[in-house]
Amino acid sequence: MKLPGQEEFEVSSACENVPTGELDSGPGSGPSPDGPSDTDRGELGVPKDPLLFIQLNELLGWPQALEWRETGRWVLFEEKLEVGAGRWSVPHVPTLALPSLQKLRSLLAEGLVLLDCPAQSFLELVEQVTRVESLSPELRGQLQALLLQRPQHLIQPTGTRPCQGSAHPREASHNEEAPLKEQHQNPLRRKLPPGAEAGVVLAGELGFLAQPLGAFVRLRDPVVLGPLTEVPLPSRFFCLLLGPSTLGKGYHEMGRAMAVLLSDPQFQWSVRRASNLQHLLAALDAFLEEVTVLPPGRWDPTTRIAPPKCLPSQHKRLLSQLREVQGPSARHGALAEDRYGHWPQAPSPELQRTGRLFGGLVQDVRRKASWYPSDFLDALHPQCFSAVLYIYLATVTNAITFGGLLGEATNGAQGVLESFLGTAVAGAAFCLMAGQPLTILSSTGPVLVFERLLFSFSRDYSLDYLPFRLWVGIWVATFCLALVATEASVLVRYFTRFTEEGFCALISLIFIYDAVGKMLSLTSAYPIQSPGYPAYGCFCQYPDLGGNESEWTRTEPKDRDDISSMDLGLVNASLLPPPECARRGGQPRGPSCHTVPDITFFSLLLFLTSFLLATALKHMKASRFFPSVVRRVLGDFSSVLAMLLGCGLDSFLGLATPKLTVPSEFKPTLPGRGWLVSPFGANPWWLSVAAALPALLLSILIFMDQQITAVILNRAEYKLQKGAGFHLDLFCVALLMLLTSVLGLPWYVSATVISLAHMDSLRRESRACALGEPCSFLGIREQRLTGLVVFILTGTSIFLAPVLKFIPMPVLYGVFLYMGVAAISSIQFTKRVQLLLMPAKHQPDLLLLRHVPLSRVHLFTAIQLACLGLLWIIKSTPAAIIFPLMLLGLVGVRKALERVFSPQELLWLDELMPEKERSIPEKGLQPEYSLSGDSEDSELMYQPRAPEINISVN
Amino acid sequence: MKLPGQEEFEVSSACENVPTGELDSGPGSGPSPDGPSDTDRGELGVPKDPLLFIQLNELLGWPQALEWRETGRWVLFEEKLEVGAGRWSVPHVPTLALPSLQKLRSLLAEGLVLLDCPAQSFLELVEQVTRVESLSPELRGQLQALLLQRPQHLIQPTGTRPCQGSAHPREASHNEEAPLKEQHQNPLRRKLPPGAEAGVVLAGELGFLAQPLGAFVRLRDPVVLGPLTEVPLPSRFFCLLLGPSTLGKGYHEMGRAMAVLLSDPQFQWSVRRASNLQHLLAALDAFLEEVTVLPPGRWDPTTRIAPPKCLPSQHKRLLSQLREVQGPSARHGALAEDRYGHWPQAPSPELQRTGRLFGGLVQDVRRKASWYPSDFLDALHPQCFSAVLYIYLATVTNAITFGGLLGEATNGAQGVLESFLGTAVAGAAFCLMAGQPLTILSSTGPVLVFERLLFSFSRDYSLDYLPFRLWVGIWVATFCLALVATEASVLVRYFTRFTEEGFCALISLIFIYDAVGKMLSLTSAYPIQSPGYPAYGCFCQYPDLGGNESEWTRTEPKDRDDISSMDLGLVNASLLPPPECARRGGQPRGPSCHTVPDITFFSLLLFLTSFLLATALKHMKASRFFPSVVRRVLGDFSSVLAMLLGCGLDSFLGLATPKLTVPSEFKPTLPGRGWLVSPFGANPWWLSVAAALPALLLSILIFMDQQITAVILNRAEYKLQKGAGFHLDLFCVALLMLLTSVLGLPWYVSATVISLAHMDSLRRESRACALGEPCSFLGIREQRLTGLVVFILTGTSIFLAPVLKFIPMPVLYGVFLYMGVAAISSIQFTKRVQLLLMPAKHQPDLLLLRHVPLSRVHLFTAIQLACLGLLWIIKSTPAAIIFPLMLLGLVGVRKALERVFSPQELLWLDELMPEKERSIPEKGLQPEYSLSGDSEDSELMYQPRAPEINISVN
Repeated sequence: MKLPGQEEFEVSSACENVPTGELDSGPGSGPSPDGPSDTDRGELGVPKDPLLFIQLNELLGWPQALEWRETGRWVLFEEKLEVGAGRWSVPHVPTLALPSLQKLRSLLAEGLVLLDCPAQSFLELVEQVTRVESLSPELRGQLQALLLQRPQHLIQPTGTRPCQGSAHPREASHNEEAPLKEQHQNPLRRKLPPGAEAGVVLAGELGFLAQPLGAFVRLRDPVVLGPLTEVPLPSRFFCLLLGPSTLGKGYHEMGRAMAVLLSDPQFQWSVRRASNLQHLLAALDAFLEEVTVLPPGRWDPTTRIAPPKCLPSQHKRLLSQLREVQGPSARHGALAEDRYGHWPQAPSPELQRTGRLFGGLVQDVRRKASWYPSDFLDALHPQCFSAVLYIYLATVTNAITFGGLLGEATNGAQGVLESFLGTAVAGAAFCLMAGQPLTILSSTGPVLVFERLLFSFSRDYSLDYLPFRLWVGIWVATFCLALVATEASVLVRYFTRFTEEGFCALISLIFIYDAVGKMLSLTSAYPIQSPGYPAYGCFCQYPDLGGNESEWTRTEPKDRDDISSMDLGLVNASLLPPPECARRGGQPRGPSCHTVPDITFFSLLLFLTSFLLATALKHMKASRFFPSVVRRVLGDFSSVLAMLLGCGLDSFLGLATPKLTVPSEFKPTLPGRGWLVSPFGANPWWLSVAAALPALLLSILIFMDQQITAVILNRAEYKLQKGAGFHLDLFCVALLMLLTSVLGLPWYVSATVISLAHMDSLRRESRACALGEPCSFLGIREQRLTGLVVFILTGTSIFLAPVLKFIPMPVLYGVFLYMGVAAISSIQFTKRVQLLLMPAKHQPDLLLLRHVPLSRVHLFTAIQLACLGLLWIIKSTPAAIIFPLMLLGLVGVRKALERVFSPQELLWLDELMPEKERSIPEKGLQPEYSLSGDSEDSELMYQPRAPEINISVN
Repeated sequence: MKLPGQEEFEVSSACENVPTGELDSGPGSGPSPDGPSDTDRGELGVPKDPLLFIQLNELLGWPQALEWRETGRWVLFEEKLEVGAGRWSVPHVPTLALPSLQKLRSLLAEGLVLLDCPAQSFLELVEQVTRVESLSPELRGQLQALLLQRPQHLIQPTGTRPCQGSAHPREASHNEEAPLKEQHQNPLRRKLPPGAEAGVVLAGELGFLAQPLGAFVRLRDPVVLGPLTEVPLPSRFFCLLLGPSTLGKGYHEMGRAMAVLLSDPQFQWSVRRASNLQHLLAALDAFLEEVTVLPPGRWDPTTRIAPPKCLPSQHKRLLSQLREVQGPSARHGALAEDRYGHWPQAPSPELQRTGRLFGGLVQDVRRKASWYPSDFLDALHPQCFSAVLYIYLATVTNAITFGGLLGEATNGAQGVLESFLGTAVAGAAFCLMAGQPLTILSSTGPVLVFERLLFSFSRDYSLDYLPFRLWVGIWVATFCLALVATEASVLVRYFTRFTEEGFCALISLIFIYDAVGKMLSLTSAYPIQSPGYPAYGCFCQYPDLGGNESEWTRTEPKDRDDISSMDLGLVNASLLPPPECARRGGQPRGPSCHTVPDITFFSLLLFLTSFLLATALKHMKASRFFPSVVRRVLGDFSSVLAMLLGCGLDSFLGLATPKLTVPSEFKPTLPGRGWLVSPFGANPWWLSVAAALPALLLSILIFMDQQITAVILNRAEYKLQKGAGFHLDLFCVALLMLLTSVLGLPWYVSATVISLAHMDSLRRESRACALGEPCSFLGIREQRLTGLVVFILTGTSIFLAPVLKFIPMPVLYGVFLYMGVAAISSIQFTKRVQLLLMPAKHQPDLLLLRHVPLSRVHLFTAIQLACLGLLWIIKSTPAAIIFPLMLLGLVGVRKALERVFSPQELLWLDELMPEKERSIPEKGLQPEYSLSGDSEDSELMYQPRAPEINISVN
């Protein structure tokens, strides 16, 4: 299942490294998008260039009422002043006309260029800039006065209503150089990081000038230029572009061109280091070399292009320069390297085999021990409170849903109470001991499915379930310890996407099938009375009056359905409802005494409502409505809200829908058992040995589920600093397996989605996040406290039990269906199945379709479908319990696919298995056609892979 | 309501003029997007330049295995060969690198340029091109052989599986110059219009050349160059770009640049007329002047940009050149003119007042009479068959839904049978007589609402409904004739969007309210038995046996609910169902004998199912799944399919849900009335005079509904050639009013949505429609036959009546709700209401938000909401029947708004009323700020306004 918060996380994490790489380094410092980076220093310890805020002030109103007005601003993208609407436009990719860049170049070439100008105030700066030969002293005075005039800014408050900037144009005197109050109050200021600098471009037509006046100034020390910029930042760059009005709107466009140039990181880097005009012009020419050109007949230049999800990284620009120089072969090499450098499927150092028994575990413990004190100190941040609340609610929802379903599936051997208790105990213990304490344990989908099968198996053979289960647990713990000892976790790399998708799809389908099946089974429990069906009769018969009991008995037919067609003869009766009847000593008689109408359809309505509501609320997150806080809450708590609505609806109508079974006091759900499971019970002694067989199957399942999740959680893109602990995690799971088996509690492994949500809620981000720029991701607050608190809270929630009995089962089924559908929608396999239904020309422009023939894509999908079908068939036979073995068999199928598909195809459709991966880079990974023209690998290629596989359905 | 087909129609019609204008004219012929245009000749009778198909063949495999391969093609947009996947990419806007254009320019400047080359075959052409001094004879031979080598094409069959072109590279001999079979079979060929020409660009690196070789050839007469192009088109342009391999992929990019240049309409126009190299280079420079530039740091050049909805028109490019020359003031003038020129809210010539009594009607009749024979001859086209099927199904669905609801609302005074009969008679008559025979009449929303109110009114005052209604009809006809006589239709221009939206929103809300209300009223008709409610008892009591009838009577309480709490004493009873009981002489006794369980919730499920299914199928149209034919059918017949599914579900379960009432034979639904309504019935004589008052109200309603619809249907963007007939249409409506009142049938006016769907299904389009290019719209098959056949079929469908009684009412309510929701979603008002819930930064980039301050937008919306609230309050009082007067009052409110909002604001929020509109262009329509920088009016500004208002909810 994809938990609330997941999607947003994916999108942002997919791009997270780009802005950092973008902002922190000039072309010199080189690309290194991964790994933690500081806000103040670049990768190589070189001080980073500060962020540049660029503002365009235009001179308007010639000739009557000259005034300066801010009409555009840039950090990453352009925001334009919507004059009529009095608001800033949405940030968009700036587009320029080529002639304006060329005009700008010639104006700069002829104009004044002051690099490292020592001016300390705006007045000084203006004096320096206007010291041009072509100006007469009179004109110079006029121009200086004009330049010192205070500009108008549109300062948009954070609220909804924008208002015009309140500054009125008037002459500035010297002591007015201090920034104004409104500048300080500008909410934009809070969004710019400390140390940001400003660049100001002044442009416009000025009739009294005889010839164009261009000036470009780089200040030696950035200075706050009074009220010139809308935020009181120290300005580093100043550019003046004025001239007679022959050019039409030429100056406006030239001003924009200058601002766009300054906002380009490469140009900025160069111009900060330029020491003369030639360097400046060279930087402009280098910019022109790299621009993208759109043909006029096919593209309307006024169209605003939304900011791309990912900015082209410096890395890529370097790479494209490299291509120019080195030609295609170097390109492919770089590409292959890039693929493996960026997509962190490569093994973590923690997954290197030591070769010693328990070597990995020992290393894990050593590594984590040094961080242990900080694991508690690092939690002292307010963000952790909201993380606790969020994860607590998600955990409780899971505990209720899975507990309810497990209770039903195992006939009370497990139940909601066990689920709460087990979650609290296992979760808290794991948080205290584990290698990756951000992991949230849960009784996930695969384990739930296995437990259900195990229960049916033991019922079929009349075994005493809990003692049998205890031995399975003991054996699983043993096997897992063996896996830890042999460092088997390194084998996790054989589980490619193919295996993961098969795993996830099977479990999701079982979820969906079960949810719908259980819902439909209500139809037989509460039959619908069709109009042909004879009677709704139920009345209360009194045996004591008139002694006609015998008469009823006499006429009572064997077939209950026939009762209605028979004469009852004389009876002494009333129409009291059954309970009241029994109280008065009567007996309810008739076919309708034990059926309740309306329950089936109402349950169906509850089921659909909770499913649709949860889905809709989840999508709410991406909608435009409501402030983002509200959307986030609605999206994050979609299952909780769907459950609450379902319960409300149910209690409003007060119908006798089937409800969650909750024991009334703190004791195991199964009557008559204590908290400790007896080791043998009614089972023969040899069953404790035979339990090793199912335990082997469960061990496979747990190993796959646990390790794939652990790999996903410890991916490099999350920038974890305290390292992973694959072996230690598995060790903990093994111990907890033992504990929960002894206590008869559900079994627990790491849950992908909720753990990712946990990490997501603990993201550290750079504070500044303005103007269409994605926040830069700094890392995650790695600590043990939030998880611990969540599970302590879950433990205390056991006392919520009396409230839980009001939850109708159809609502739980609905949430269950939602989980299954969300999980199966999240995998690439589903997208490829959808491709089967799409005509080729309507297919989305997936990267994979650009590189693999459609027939091969379909073949791969068909093979996956066949595997899934086979798994489903096995799951439906009495041999269902061996399905974990079959899941493992997917690894073999994947291996065999190497004979059917080329490595290039598998690279796009799946990923490479260890041996192949080693061999391919040597071969050079050439595409099928050796000279395929340009390899148009769009930005998608450069994205780190998002955690798209959510193997654990929960 | 928006009918299926509507959305697609809007989108395509919004852009329809662009490709025509694009393809038909060079810069000389000027823009004139409206009005019919021919495929062969441009606007001014100048022969149009043919469409150019451009293909890039690249030389690959140097040095080992040289071969030519088609790697890109262009008509409007670029399609790139996906080498790995062996398919064409999706069409996208081509992007170029600036250096490649510059390199191309210098190569052309130094290279060979042959304009009007007389070559008659590829061989001749190759000989001419290779006659360059720099080549030695040996090299020349080698080069010629290479050029004559047959290229590889990827010919993609129309089916789903693409396959590699089967041509294998080998030397071409002279007699192989004929096009190959596979070229002829290329499905692309059918998509290119007759007369299309080809341009071929050959590019690549060739190691044995010492220096670059560039050649550009314009053939005097286009020649099929053998197997060179993938489609056997005569080639007009040929460009060769070869050189040593120092440039890396430079030649590929230069080849693309050449192809993109050729695909630009302005460049193409110039180069077709160029007479020397200088002209060619000037055209290239003109292209460079106009390109849009994207900065490298903000835009990844490999991103593929989807084709824009509308191409920038030549008009706009001219305008932008104009701006450059004339400066801002000329710009605004042009803009204002453009606004009024393009957005055809300006009065049609048919709406000019003649000043004579019935002058407009006489003119209408004269105009239409001359077209009358062609109105039947023009229908002889297969397209008309599918139109008939589609509109017939839509009409029947409407007849069932509205008939069913009207029957319920008027207690049988109207019914499904009347609805079928009325639709057939009125519709057919209208098609034969009307000014705009494409109009489909329907008993639309407003009239339905009014009829319901009229019925409640007459019931409240115990009037004989049908005779009263007859007099209302007579008066309405009289008033309408008066309106025709005085040419009142010209007043339609006072109904601005503000009025239309108020109208549509009110009617839609009434629909939604009614649908939900009727659904909920089932809850009281079929009560849910809550668990506290005593009994479900019903048994069969026999009075003859034991004579205990008296006992029952004795104990029977007054309050029926109390029955269950009483002892019945001795009764002789059975549990037979009520009908069986009655047959056997017994009597059903007990509270549950007359209630049927499960009906309420099942009805609710049916209601939701049909609503959600209709909505989902409607959206299916825009999805990527299934071939477009399937999607179109699913979308177009969404209501029909939703109804069918609902009926299927209902009959599958066989529950006694409430069904549509249909008389079993062909007679009026109301028992005891004939087909002719008696003029007085039980009413006093003076009621025939008093009926004039409600008739006045109904006349307002009908006039507004009919005329707004007529204006929408006759908009200039539909390119109707036979003219409109506003007065004649109203005249026909008046006559039909009389007829239907006499026969007691529903009243009919023009229905916007279904008429638009009718027109949409009769679109004439240019056959060629390839490669991302929208089809060009030529006009509509204006004729009377399709409508006539539709209504004759509707008439014969009266015999379907016995089938209709299986339709459950909840399904009809669901479709009704769908209609209301679809209608209210389609208006701009709804979008503005949504803005109220969106934080400013998440708001979509609406043109209106760029030009009007948000607070003013919200104020306008709030005023509309207040008006709507007031209308709703009136509708809920006993004075509800005067609501048409209040709708008319909206015109007054709109007039008053001119004091609150500036004309510019109203221009964006609404549209201008007649007087204002005249005055504004004189004032120059300057925006608020006189020198607002560039006025970034994106392509939206140039789109003709789509028929977004669907005033008739049906």
